[in-house]
Amino acid sequence: MAHVVADKAKILARVNRIKGQLEAFSKAVDSGQDCYQVLQLLASCRGAMNGLMSEVVENHIREHIVEAENKKAASESGEDLIEIMRSFLK
Amino acid sequence: MAHVVADKAKILARVNRIKGQLEAFSKAVDSGQDCYQVLQLLASCRGAMNGLMSEVVENHIREHIVEAENKKAASESGEDLIEIMRSFLK
Amino acid sequence: MAHVVADKAKILARVNRIKGQLEAFSKAVDSGQDCYQVLQLLASCRGAMNGLMSEVVENHIREHIVEAENKKAASESGEDLIEIMRSFLK
Amino acid sequence: MAHVVADKAKILARVNRIKGQLEAFSKAVDSGQDCYQVLQLLASCRGAMNGLMSEVVENHIREHIVEAENKKAASESGEDLIEIMRSFLK
Repeated sequence: MAHVVADKAKILARVNRIKGQLEAFSKAVDSGQDCYQVLQLLASCRGAMNGLMSEVVENHIREHIVEAENKKAASESGEDLIEIMRSFLK
Repeated sequence: MAHVVADKAKILARVNRIKGQLEAFSKAVDSGQDCYQVLQLLASCRGAMNGLMSEVVENHIREHIVEAENKKAASESGEDLIEIMRSFLK
Repeated sequence: MAHVVADKAKILARVNRIKGQLEAFSKAVDSGQDCYQVLQLLASCRGAMNGLMSEVVENHIREHIVEAENKKAASESGEDLIEIMRSFLK
Repeated sequence: MAHVVADKAKILARVNRIKGQLEAFSKAVDSGQDCYQVLQLLASCRGAMNGLMSEVVENHIREHIVEAENKKAASESGEDLIEIMRSFLK
Protein backbone atom coordinates (compact mmCIF):
# COMPACT_ATOMS: atom_id res chain seq x y z
CA MET A 1 0.00 0.00 0.00
CA ALA A 2 3.06 2.21 -0.50
CA HIS A 3 1.42 4.60 -2.93
CA VAL A 4 -1.13 6.08 -0.54
CA VAL A 5 1.43 6.49 2.24
CA ALA A 6 3.96 7.98 -0.18
CA ASP A 7 1.53 10.74 -1.31
CA LYS A 8 0.00 11.16 2.12
CA ALA A 9 1.10 14.75 2.70
CA LYS A 10 -0.13 15.89 -0.75
CA ILE A 11 -3.47 14.10 -0.38
CA LEU A 12 -4.07 15.34 3.18
CA ALA A 13 -3.26 18.90 2.06
CA ARG A 14 -5.94 18.58 -0.66
CA VAL A 15 -8.45 17.33 1.91
CA ASN A 16 -7.75 20.34 4.13
CA ARG A 17 -8.30 22.69 1.18
CA ILE A 18 -11.66 21.04 0.47
CA LYS A 19 -12.62 21.40 4.14
CA GLY A 20 -11.73 25.11 3.91
CA GLN A 21 -13.88 25.49 0.79
CA LEU A 22 -16.77 23.71 2.52
CA GLU A 23 -16.33 26.09 5.46
CA ALA A 24 -16.59 29.09 3.10
CA PHE A 25 -19.71 27.54 1.54
CA SER A 26 -21.30 27.03 4.98
CA LYS A 27 -20.61 30.66 5.93
CA ALA A 28 -22.13 31.88 2.66
CA VAL A 29 -25.27 29.82 3.28
CA ASP A 30 -25.42 30.86 6.93
CA SER A 31 -25.05 34.55 6.14
CA GLY A 32 -27.70 34.33 3.43
CA GLN A 33 -25.33 35.31 0.64
CA ASP A 34 -26.60 35.64 -2.92
CA CYS A 35 -27.54 32.29 -4.38
CA TYR A 36 -25.17 32.69 -7.34
CA GLN A 37 -22.15 32.97 -4.97
CA VAL A 38 -23.40 29.96 -3.00
CA LEU A 39 -23.74 27.87 -6.19
CA GLN A 40 -20.28 29.00 -7.37
CA LEU A 41 -18.67 28.08 -4.03
CA LEU A 42 -20.28 24.66 -4.09
CA ALA A 43 -19.26 24.03 -7.71
CA SER A 44 -15.63 24.74 -6.72
CA CYS A 45 -15.94 22.34 -3.73
CA ARG A 46 -17.18 19.70 -6.15
CA GLY A 47 -14.33 20.41 -8.59
CA ALA A 48 -11.79 20.08 -5.76
CA MET A 49 -13.34 16.76 -4.69
CA ASN A 50 -13.06 15.48 -8.27
CA GLY A 51 -9.44 16.64 -8.33
CA LEU A 52 -8.70 14.68 -5.15
CA MET A 53 -10.42 11.61 -6.58
CA SER A 54 -8.40 11.97 -9.78
CA GLU A 55 -5.11 12.12 -7.86
CA VAL A 56 -5.87 9.09 -5.66
CA VAL A 57 -6.99 7.06 -8.69
CA GLU A 58 -3.91 8.03 -10.69
CA ASN A 59 -1.64 6.94 -7.81
CA HIS A 60 -3.57 3.66 -7.61
CA ILE A 61 -3.06 2.99 -11.35
CA ARG A 62 0.66 3.76 -11.25
CA GLU A 63 1.68 2.18 -7.96
CA HIS A 64 -0.86 -0.61 -7.40
CA ILE A 65 -1.52 -1.83 -10.90
CA VAL A 66 1.43 -0.91 -13.15
CA GLU A 67 4.03 -1.42 -10.36
CA ALA A 68 2.20 -4.35 -8.69
CA GLU A 69 4.48 -7.07 -7.26
CA ASN A 70 2.85 -9.78 -9.33
CA LYS A 71 -0.02 -10.46 -11.75
CA LYS A 72 -2.42 -11.47 -8.93
CA ALA A 73 -1.86 -8.18 -7.06
CA ALA A 74 -2.20 -6.22 -10.31
CA SER A 75 -5.47 -7.98 -11.13
CA GLU A 76 -6.95 -7.36 -7.67
CA SER A 77 -6.05 -3.66 -7.80
CA GLY A 78 -7.44 -3.52 -11.34
CA GLU A 79 -10.80 -4.88 -10.19
CA ASP A 80 -10.81 -2.42 -7.26
CA LEU A 81 -10.39 0.43 -9.76
CA ILE A 82 -13.08 -0.92 -12.09
CA GLU A 83 -15.58 -0.98 -9.23
CA ILE A 84 -14.81 2.61 -8.19
CA MET A 85 -14.90 3.86 -11.79
CA ARG A 86 -18.40 2.49 -12.31
CA SER A 87 -19.53 5.10 -9.80
CA PHE A 88 -18.19 7.84 -12.11
CA LEU A 89 -19.62 6.45 -15.30
CA LYS A 90 -23.30 5.98 -14.49
CA MET B 1 -32.62 34.57 -1.48
CA ALA B 2 -35.18 32.90 0.76
CA HIS B 3 -34.63 29.38 -0.59
CA VAL B 4 -31.07 28.94 0.70
CA VAL B 5 -31.89 30.46 4.06
CA ALA B 6 -35.04 28.32 4.33
CA ASP B 7 -33.11 25.04 3.86
CA LYS B 8 -30.08 26.30 5.76
CA ALA B 9 -30.22 23.72 8.58
CA LYS B 10 -30.60 20.79 6.15
CA ILE B 11 -27.78 22.01 3.89
CA LEU B 12 -25.41 22.75 6.78
CA ALA B 13 -26.12 19.29 8.22
CA ARG B 14 -25.13 17.76 4.86
CA VAL B 15 -21.90 19.80 4.87
CA ASN B 16 -21.03 18.51 8.33
CA ARG B 17 -21.60 14.93 7.20
CA ILE B 18 -19.25 15.48 4.25
CA LYS B 19 -16.64 16.94 6.59
CA GLY B 20 -17.01 13.83 8.78
CA GLN B 21 -16.54 11.58 5.74
CA LEU B 22 -13.48 13.56 4.69
CA GLU B 23 -12.12 13.13 8.23
CA ALA B 24 -12.57 9.35 7.99
CA PHE B 25 -10.82 9.40 4.60
CA SER B 26 -7.89 11.38 6.03
CA LYS B 27 -7.52 8.91 8.93
CA ALA B 28 -7.55 5.97 6.52
CA VAL B 29 -4.83 7.57 4.38
CA ASP B 30 -2.82 8.58 7.46
CA SER B 31 -2.98 5.12 9.00
CA GLY B 32 -2.01 3.51 5.68
CA GLN B 33 -5.26 1.57 5.35
CA ASP B 34 -5.77 -0.75 2.39
CA CYS B 35 -6.11 1.18 -0.83
CA TYR B 36 -9.51 -0.33 -1.64
CA GLN B 37 -10.98 1.10 1.59
CA VAL B 38 -9.39 4.48 0.87
CA LEU B 39 -10.91 4.53 -2.65
CA GLN B 40 -14.32 3.47 -1.27
CA LEU B 41 -14.28 6.21 1.40
CA LEU B 42 -13.39 8.83 -1.19
CA ALA B 43 -16.07 7.62 -3.62
CA SER B 44 -18.65 8.07 -0.84
CA CYS B 45 -17.33 11.59 -0.10
CA ARG B 46 -17.77 12.39 -3.79
CA GLY B 47 -21.29 10.93 -3.81
CA ALA B 48 -22.22 13.04 -0.76
CA MET B 49 -20.84 16.18 -2.44
CA ASN B 50 -22.95 15.43 -5.54
CA GLY B 51 -25.95 14.93 -3.27
CA LEU B 52 -25.38 18.34 -1.67
CA MET B 53 -25.01 19.94 -5.10
CA SER B 54 -28.22 18.26 -6.25
CA GLU B 55 -30.16 19.61 -3.25
CA VAL B 56 -28.90 23.19 -3.60
CA VAL B 57 -29.63 23.19 -7.34
CA GLU B 58 -33.12 21.76 -6.81
CA ASN B 59 -33.88 24.49 -4.28
CA HIS B 60 -32.59 27.07 -6.72
CA ILE B 61 -34.89 25.78 -9.50
CA ARG B 62 -37.97 25.71 -7.27
CA GLU B 63 -37.53 28.88 -5.28
CA HIS B 64 -35.48 31.18 -7.49
CA ILE B 65 -36.72 30.29 -10.97
CA VAL B 66 -40.22 28.76 -10.69
CA GLU B 67 -41.23 31.00 -7.74
CA ALA B 68 -39.27 34.08 -8.92
CA GLU B 69 -40.98 37.43 -8.27
CA ASN B 70 -40.90 38.40 -11.91
CA LYS B 71 -39.66 37.32 -15.35
CA LYS B 72 -36.38 39.28 -15.00
CA ALA B 73 -35.52 37.58 -11.69
CA ALA B 74 -36.46 34.17 -13.14
CA SER B 75 -34.26 34.78 -16.17
CA GLU B 76 -31.25 35.85 -14.08
CA SER B 77 -31.57 32.80 -11.84
CA GLY B 78 -32.01 30.63 -14.93
CA GLU B 79 -28.74 31.91 -16.40
CA ASP B 80 -27.00 31.33 -13.04
CA LEU B 81 -28.15 27.71 -13.15
CA ILE B 82 -27.09 27.25 -16.78
CA GLU B 83 -23.57 28.43 -15.95
CA ILE B 84 -23.26 26.04 -12.99
CA MET B 85 -24.69 23.09 -14.95
CA ARG B 86 -22.09 23.51 -17.68
CA SER B 87 -19.52 22.44 -15.08
CA PHE B 88 -21.39 19.13 -14.66
CA LEU B 89 -21.85 18.45 -18.36
CA LYS B 90 -18.33 18.72 -19.73
CA MET C 1 -43.23 22.83 -26.50
CA ALA C 2 -41.98 25.57 -28.78
CA HIS C 3 -38.40 25.51 -27.53
CA VAL C 4 -37.50 22.06 -28.86
CA VAL C 5 -39.09 22.73 -32.21
CA ALA C 6 -37.43 26.14 -32.38
CA ASP C 7 -33.92 24.66 -31.98
CA LYS C 8 -34.71 21.54 -33.95
CA ALA C 9 -32.22 22.10 -36.77
CA LYS C 10 -29.36 22.86 -34.37
CA ILE C 11 -30.13 19.87 -32.16
CA LEU C 12 -30.53 17.45 -35.07
CA ALA C 13 -27.23 18.69 -36.53
CA ARG C 14 -25.53 17.87 -33.21
CA VAL C 15 -27.09 14.41 -33.24
CA ASN C 16 -25.73 13.77 -36.74
CA ARG C 17 -22.25 14.83 -35.63
CA ILE C 18 -22.41 12.39 -32.71
CA LYS C 19 -23.50 9.63 -35.08
CA GLY C 20 -20.51 10.45 -37.30
CA GLN C 21 -18.19 10.30 -34.30
CA LEU C 22 -19.68 6.95 -33.26
CA GLU C 23 -19.10 5.73 -36.82
CA ALA C 24 -15.43 6.72 -36.62
CA PHE C 25 -15.17 4.92 -33.26
CA SER C 26 -16.73 1.75 -34.72
CA LYS C 27 -14.29 1.78 -37.64
CA ALA C 28 -11.34 2.22 -35.27
CA VAL C 29 -12.51 -0.75 -33.16
CA ASP C 30 -13.25 -2.84 -36.24
CA SER C 31 -9.88 -2.17 -37.84
CA GLY C 32 -8.08 -2.93 -34.55
CA GLN C 33 -6.64 0.55 -34.20
CA ASP C 34 -4.39 1.36 -31.25
CA CYS C 35 -6.30 1.39 -27.99
CA TYR C 36 -5.28 4.95 -27.17
CA GLN C 37 -6.96 6.23 -30.37
CA VAL C 38 -10.05 4.17 -29.61
CA LEU C 39 -10.27 5.63 -26.08
CA GLN C 40 -9.72 9.15 -27.42
CA LEU C 41 -12.47 8.76 -30.06
CA LEU C 42 -14.90 7.48 -27.44
CA ALA C 43 -14.06 10.27 -25.00
CA SER C 44 -14.91 12.79 -27.74
CA CYS C 45 -18.22 10.99 -28.45
CA ARG C 46 -19.01 11.26 -24.74
CA GLY C 47 -18.09 14.96 -24.70
CA ALA C 48 -20.35 15.60 -27.71
CA MET C 49 -23.23 13.76 -26.00
CA ASN C 50 -22.75 15.92 -22.88
CA GLY C 51 -22.73 18.99 -25.11
CA LEU C 52 -26.04 17.96 -26.67
CA MET C 53 -27.52 17.31 -23.23
CA SER C 54 -26.30 20.72 -22.05
CA GLU C 55 -27.95 22.47 -25.01
CA VAL C 56 -31.31 20.70 -24.61
CA VAL C 57 -31.35 21.38 -20.87
CA GLU C 58 -30.47 25.05 -21.38
CA ASN C 59 -33.31 25.44 -23.86
CA HIS C 60 -35.65 23.75 -21.40
CA ILE C 61 -34.66 26.17 -18.60
CA ARG C 62 -35.06 29.26 -20.78
CA GLU C 63 -38.17 28.39 -22.75
CA HIS C 64 -40.12 25.99 -20.55
CA ILE C 65 -39.37 27.32 -17.05
CA VAL C 66 -38.36 30.99 -17.29
CA GLU C 67 -40.78 31.70 -20.20
CA ALA C 68 -43.52 29.31 -19.00
CA GLU C 69 -47.10 30.54 -19.61
CA ASN C 70 -48.00 30.25 -15.94
CA LYS C 71 -46.70 29.14 -12.55
CA LYS C 72 -48.17 25.62 -12.93
CA ALA C 73 -46.40 25.05 -16.27
CA ALA C 74 -43.15 26.46 -14.85
CA SER C 75 -43.39 24.16 -11.83
CA GLU C 76 -44.03 21.05 -13.96
CA SER C 77 -41.09 21.84 -16.23
CA GLY C 78 -38.98 22.55 -13.16
CA GLU C 79 -39.75 19.12 -11.72
CA ASP C 80 -38.97 17.51 -15.11
CA LEU C 81 -35.54 19.16 -15.04
CA ILE C 82 -34.90 18.13 -11.43
CA GLU C 83 -35.57 14.50 -12.30
CA ILE C 84 -33.21 14.56 -15.29
CA MET C 85 -30.48 16.37 -13.35
CA ARG C 86 -30.46 13.70 -10.66
CA SER C 87 -29.06 11.36 -13.32
CA PHE C 88 -26.06 13.69 -13.73
CA LEU C 89 -25.40 14.19 -10.05
CA LYS C 90 -25.18 10.66 -8.73
CA MET D 1 -4.26 -4.54 -28.88
CA ALA D 2 -6.05 -7.86 -28.44
CA HIS D 3 -8.57 -6.58 -25.90
CA VAL D 4 -10.44 -4.27 -28.25
CA VAL D 5 -10.50 -6.80 -31.06
CA ALA D 6 -11.60 -9.57 -28.69
CA ASP D 7 -14.67 -7.61 -27.49
CA LYS D 8 -15.34 -6.09 -30.88
CA ALA D 9 -18.74 -7.67 -31.46
CA LYS D 10 -20.01 -6.65 -28.00
CA ILE D 11 -18.71 -3.09 -28.32
CA LEU D 12 -20.07 -2.63 -31.86
CA ALA D 13 -23.46 -3.95 -30.71
CA ARG D 14 -23.49 -1.30 -27.97
CA VAL D 15 -22.65 1.39 -30.52
CA ASN D 16 -25.55 0.31 -32.71
CA ARG D 17 -27.92 0.47 -29.73
CA ILE D 18 -26.76 4.02 -28.99
CA LYS D 19 -27.30 4.98 -32.63
CA GLY D 20 -30.83 3.54 -32.37
CA GLN D 21 -31.48 5.58 -29.21
CA LEU D 22 -30.16 8.72 -30.92
CA GLU D 23 -32.50 7.98 -33.84
CA ALA D 24 -35.47 7.76 -31.45
CA PHE D 25 -34.36 11.06 -29.86
CA SER D 26 -34.15 12.75 -33.28
CA LYS D 27 -37.65 11.54 -34.20
CA ALA D 28 -39.03 12.83 -30.88
CA VAL D 29 -37.45 16.26 -31.49
CA ASP D 30 -38.56 16.30 -35.13
CA SER D 31 -42.15 15.39 -34.30
CA GLY D 32 -42.27 18.00 -31.53
CA GLN D 33 -42.86 15.46 -28.79
CA ASP D 34 -43.34 16.62 -25.20
CA CYS D 35 -40.13 18.02 -23.77
CA TYR D 36 -40.13 15.59 -20.84
CA GLN D 37 -39.99 12.60 -23.23
CA VAL D 38 -37.24 14.29 -25.23
CA LEU D 39 -35.17 14.88 -22.07
CA GLN D 40 -35.77 11.28 -20.91
CA LEU D 41 -34.67 9.86 -24.30
CA LEU D 42 -31.51 11.95 -24.25
CA ALA D 43 -30.70 11.00 -20.66
CA SER D 44 -30.88 7.31 -21.70
CA CYS D 45 -28.60 8.00 -24.69
CA ARG D 46 -26.13 9.58 -22.28
CA GLY D 47 -26.38 6.63 -19.89
CA ALA D 48 -25.74 4.21 -22.76
CA MET D 49 -22.70 6.23 -23.86
CA ASN D 50 -21.33 6.10 -20.30
CA GLY D 51 -21.95 2.34 -20.28
CA LEU D 52 -19.96 1.95 -23.49
CA MET D 53 -17.15 4.06 -22.07
CA SER D 54 -17.16 1.97 -18.90
CA GLU D 55 -16.87 -1.28 -20.87
CA VAL D 56 -14.02 -0.07 -23.10
CA VAL D 57 -12.11 1.30 -20.09
CA GLU D 58 -12.60 -1.93 -18.12
CA ASN D 59 -11.25 -3.96 -21.02
CA HIS D 60 -8.28 -1.60 -21.24
CA ILE D 61 -7.49 -2.05 -17.52
CA ARG D 62 -7.72 -5.84 -17.66
CA GLU D 63 -6.05 -6.58 -20.99
CA HIS D 64 -3.68 -3.66 -21.56
CA ILE D 65 -2.49 -2.87 -18.03
CA VAL D 66 -2.96 -5.96 -15.83
CA GLU D 67 -2.12 -8.42 -18.67
CA ALA D 68 0.50 -6.18 -20.35
CA GLU D 69 3.49 -8.02 -21.83
CA ASN D 70 5.97 -6.03 -19.77
CA LYS D 71 6.26 -3.13 -17.31
CA LYS D 72 6.87 -0.57 -20.11
CA ALA D 73 3.69 -1.58 -21.95
CA ALA D 74 1.72 -1.56 -18.67
CA SER D 75 3.01 1.92 -17.84
CA GLU D 76 2.14 3.34 -21.27
CA SER D 77 -1.38 1.91 -21.11
CA GLY D 78 -1.68 3.22 -17.54
CA GLU D 79 -0.83 6.75 -18.66
CA ASP D 80 -3.33 6.45 -21.55
CA LEU D 81 -6.04 5.58 -19.02
CA ILE D 82 -5.06 8.41 -16.67
CA GLU D 83 -5.41 10.94 -19.49
CA ILE D 84 -8.86 9.65 -20.48
CA MET D 85 -10.07 9.52 -16.85
CA ARG D 86 -9.19 13.17 -16.32
CA SER D 87 -11.96 13.96 -18.77
CA PHE D 88 -14.45 12.20 -16.45
CA LEU D 89 -13.23 13.79 -13.26
CA LYS D 90 -13.34 17.49 -14.04
